[in-house]
Amino acid sequence: MTTSVDQSALYGPVADDLPAVDELLESLYDVDFPWLREMLEVALGGGGKRMRPAVSLLAGRLGNYDLDLLVPMAASVELLHTATLVHDDVIDMAEERRGRPTAASQFNNAPSVMLGDYMFAHAAEFVARTGNIRVIRNFADTLRVMATGELSQDISAYEYSRDVQRYLDRIYGKTASLFATASEGGAIVCGAPEPHVEAARRYGSQLGMAFQIVDDVLDFSATSEELGKPAGSDLLAGTLTLPALLYMERYPDDNPIRRAFSGVRRRANLQRAIDEIRESGLLEESLETGRRFATEAVEALDALPAGEPRDTFEGLAEFVIERRS
Amino acid sequence: MTTSVDQSALYGPVADDLPAVDELLESLYDVDFPWLREMLEVALGGGGKRMRPAVSLLAGRLGNYDLDLLVPMAASVELLHTATLVHDDVIDMAEERRGRPTAASQFNNAPSVMLGDYMFAHAAEFVARTGNIRVIRNFADTLRVMATGELSQDISAYEYSRDVQRYLDRIYGKTASLFATASEGGAIVCGAPEPHVEAARRYGSQLGMAFQIVDDVLDFSATSEELGKPAGSDLLAGTLTLPALLYMERYPDDNPIRRAFSGVRRRANLQRAIDEIRESGLLEESLETGRRFATEAVEALDALPAGEPRDTFEGLAEFVIERRS
Repeated sequence: MTTSVDQSALYGPVADDLPAVDELLESLYDVDFPWLREMLEVALGGGGKRMRPAVSLLAGRLGNYDLDLLVPMAASVELLHTATLVHDDVIDMAEERRGRPTAASQFNNAPSVMLGDYMFAHAAEFVARTGNIRVIRNFADTLRVMATGELSQDISAYEYSRDVQRYLDRIYGKTASLFATASEGGAIVCGAPEPHVEAARRYGSQLGMAFQIVDDVLDFSATSEELGKPAGSDLLAGTLTLPALLYMERYPDDNPIRRAFSGVRRRANLQRAIDEIRESGLLEESLETGRRFATEAVEALDALPAGEPRDTFEGLAEFVIERRS
Repeated sequence: MTTSVDQSALYGPVADDLPAVDELLESLYDVDFPWLREMLEVALGGGGKRMRPAVSLLAGRLGNYDLDLLVPMAASVELLHTATLVHDDVIDMAEERRGRPTAASQFNNAPSVMLGDYMFAHAAEFVARTGNIRVIRNFADTLRVMATGELSQDISAYEYSRDVQRYLDRIYGKTASLFATASEGGAIVCGAPEPHVEAARRYGSQLGMAFQIVDDVLDFSATSEELGKPAGSDLLAGTLTLPALLYMERYPDDNPIRRAFSGVRRRANLQRAIDEIRESGLLEESLETGRRFATEAVEALDALPAGEPRDTFEGLAEFVIERRS
């Protein structure tokens, strides 16, 4: 489960401006349908870290820090992120139904699809408020990359002919592309110099890669209480993340995942794989890959002047690696 | 089933440019996943009339007709329309649309949600290509209105405390808003004078209203073969369109719809209502409302000079009312 973070320590010079982003997001609650308001509050209010908006605001400090442009920019990325999660829920529900469709779960799909669309619409409206075509095009492109990422993730479920490179491509689409757009977008709308825009994009991209890898490691290592779902839930759902891929590389000929995916005692074999992965050095090895991306994120900052926002960006890269939930 | 129309007669001076819109739409087929290509072909290839793109192109003739801007504009509205249909089919769990199996029924819900998102993303990317902030903001706003319309339609299913005004609001959100944006957008990107832009918007909006009302009448009056779904399918799905609302107004105290919606012999009562509506004068009365909107669409053209595109716009308004499928 996402814990709220100490935003003022983590986001330094922009922490005080994040409530304005929340306020804009909360303007969505002003709808005629009480049940929609309730769904929005669940989707948007759930103690998220607001890391993407924070990155946008921080990057805005590379130029002429203008909250009139940055707040809609930051809100648009957070909303795009949340809309994607809402649609992922529909997709996950479909997974649960596999082989056992129930009327109730099908009925519940409809509001989630519509809620996600409603959020996409507002995200598009927010980014359009920046009045910046380059940012808008990036946003549309990110939406496309994310949707393609969703697609490739879904069909890869229960396929094990996957390798690490394809995993990295997948998490770029799923997570890093939006971090990159959040960061680059903040710099662009504030008119930062082009080398700083490029540094912001690179930083966001590599930070997002590190963030997702750590997320995928935590899915194995954290306790069920911390996660709010069973440890190893990705693998149980048929999704191979980095630790599982490294495990399959280590035992290429025969292993419990391979046996599970060919239909043999699925649940028991997957649980055995989860236990073995947790006890192996593979989580540490995965984290090492995450650390490499965080290091690249920090290296991208070399193009920026000393001081803020560089210092806070550096601290954020460290936090992403060190976090435990 | 939607028959393809004689585009050169119907769309006059822009008929020859519609294939360029199709070509841009078909560029989406160029994806790594054969199954996604297949889904896109089902969703996009199914013999649509391409009326929204045609309206966009026609409106472009009010200014400096520029296909580099108009083709992405027109493709974006068609794609937004189709993406909405894909998600609607998940929501409605529709088995068929335009006489062909829907993406949602052929594939699982999950890929259909993702397919719709993928199409939204490309629609956003296409409209961003116009480089015109006003058009982009209209587009985002239309997406929002359409998503809200979806929401209000869904919760209104099986509620009968609905009146004609709320129906009209609903079809504005569902259909007319996008026709308005298609038409206005074509005029804007080609730099038409402001009074012509406003006329184009008004024309599109009222044309869309007429179009949807006729669609809702055809759902009752056309044969199952023409529709590719059972006659009265809207009512069977619990959606009250204009003919059903007029029927409820005529028999306010007790009627088969009211009985069905309170759970009494649902299917039999709805079928009886469908039969009675088909034999009543209510379909004609509904068409009369549709005709009023078509007349208003034509009246909006008074602001435009004689000749093209005004003549084709007029013919299109007539076609929308006269069509039988």
